[in-house]
Amino acid sequence: MSALYDLWYWPSIPGRGEFVRLALEAAGIIYREPARENGVDALLGDMENRHGIRPYAPPYVTNGAETVAQVALILDWLGRRHGFASEDAAVATQLMQLQLTVTDIVAEIHDTHHPISTGAYYADQKDAAKKAALSFRSERMPKYFDYFEDALSARSGPFVLGAGWSHVDSSLWLLMEGLDYAFPNRMAELAPDYPRLAACRHAFAKLDNVAAYLRSDRRMPFNEDGIFRHYPELDSKGSDA
Amino acid sequence: MSALYDLWYWPSIPGRGEFVRLALEAAGIIYREPARENGVDALLGDMENRHGIRPYAPPYVTNGAETVAQVALILDWLGRRHGFASEDAAVATQLMQLQLTVTDIVAEIHDTHHPISTGAYYADQKDAAKKAALSFRSERMPKYFDYFEDALSARSGPFVLGAGWSHVDSSLWLLMEGLDYAFPNRMAELAPDYPRLAACRHAFAKLDNVAAYLRSDRRMPFNEDGIFRHYPELDSKGSDA
Repeated sequence: MSALYDLWYWPSIPGRGEFVRLALEAAGIIYREPARENGVDALLGDMENRHGIRPYAPPYVTNGAETVAQVALILDWLGRRHGFASEDAAVATQLMQLQLTVTDIVAEIHDTHHPISTGAYYADQKDAAKKAALSFRSERMPKYFDYFEDALSARSGPFVLGAGWSHVDSSLWLLMEGLDYAFPNRMAELAPDYPRLAACRHAFAKLDNVAAYLRSDRRMPFNEDGIFRHYPELDSKGSDA
Repeated sequence: MSALYDLWYWPSIPGRGEFVRLALEAAGIIYREPARENGVDALLGDMENRHGIRPYAPPYVTNGAETVAQVALILDWLGRRHGFASEDAAVATQLMQLQLTVTDIVAEIHDTHHPISTGAYYADQKDAAKKAALSFRSERMPKYFDYFEDALSARSGPFVLGAGWSHVDSSLWLLMEGLDYAFPNRMAELAPDYPRLAACRHAFAKLDNVAAYLRSDRRMPFNEDGIFRHYPELDSKGSDA
């Protein structure tokens, strides 16, 4: 069967591309990754050849005529076509609202290790990063977790929509996995207070397609070039240290 | 005529709410602002009474049964209903992609004055802010401007879609106005290189509804509690100072 979509992303990190990859895998959609097959120059070349309304940055997804960038928009677009958003327009809008709030926390997570400049090394902004990470761990994580826990209480069942997974659940799964990797001490303190997030995570990982993906070599481990980075100095024990 | 929508936002700043307010005004849609009529406690009370899938933060818009948060999503939702998105689904998706990139630069602008923590005072993160603002002025502003200038080249006419304005144009107008306010020195250097952004701005401000709004007392001036803040020390003359 030929691929329905090309997913374009940096080949050496899970990064923001993983939110898209995970949803494609969970939905069992056939896709190709040109930059993982042919290297980063394929991605840079593809970006350079685009003009007019184009992606600002990877990830983006193409299916011949159409190109869609921005993680939340890609997920909404794919979800409506492949049954992991909602056929009810008002509900699909609510899912997008939640997905955009995942986008917000992901940007804040990136800023814990790069508070000054995306273009500068971590080592050159480590002092600011320590302060930013303290604020993120103590103030932002509980506020976002309260918010998502509340969203998961809207219906009965492990997922935001109840029984069936949506792109919000796949993104919450990756968010929690990434936070476990980046901030294991803080997560050990916080996670027990959020049983619905835990149940969502558990149920999502048990989906057949997801379980198969997680065992495959298509899944990349987190690393210190991506969004979720483990720098022990940014995860002091206790929220106030 | 009674209001179609309630716009909920902090009453004392233009902030992110202004992106929504401006589009409502440009489209001539009747709306109310409960927190500007009744004070910030009305907003705080409304937020507190919401459970399940709810806004993470203002702004949000309600029309009786439905509540939509997240600026880009509100604009896409309103735009599709009121003719300032596109009836062509693929084009509406492209507009949303551009709007989400406005969201990204707006978050970066916020982080120039609050790189460490949204919850801490500017004065307590001023040194980090100076470094973040230097990186924003020198690297990020030209990259985003190139991107939006390119998007405006896709069709002939001053707006992204050509002759008629969309929510992308209203947001680009506010973005450029806000950057003029926050970084006047840097904007004086950069703006001449972007004739399409200038033409879009000029054409948008001349729309009858927009011109009337800008003369009205519904328009709030920028101030140092919003997204776009003028701190002279963050706008040294020259991109490399």
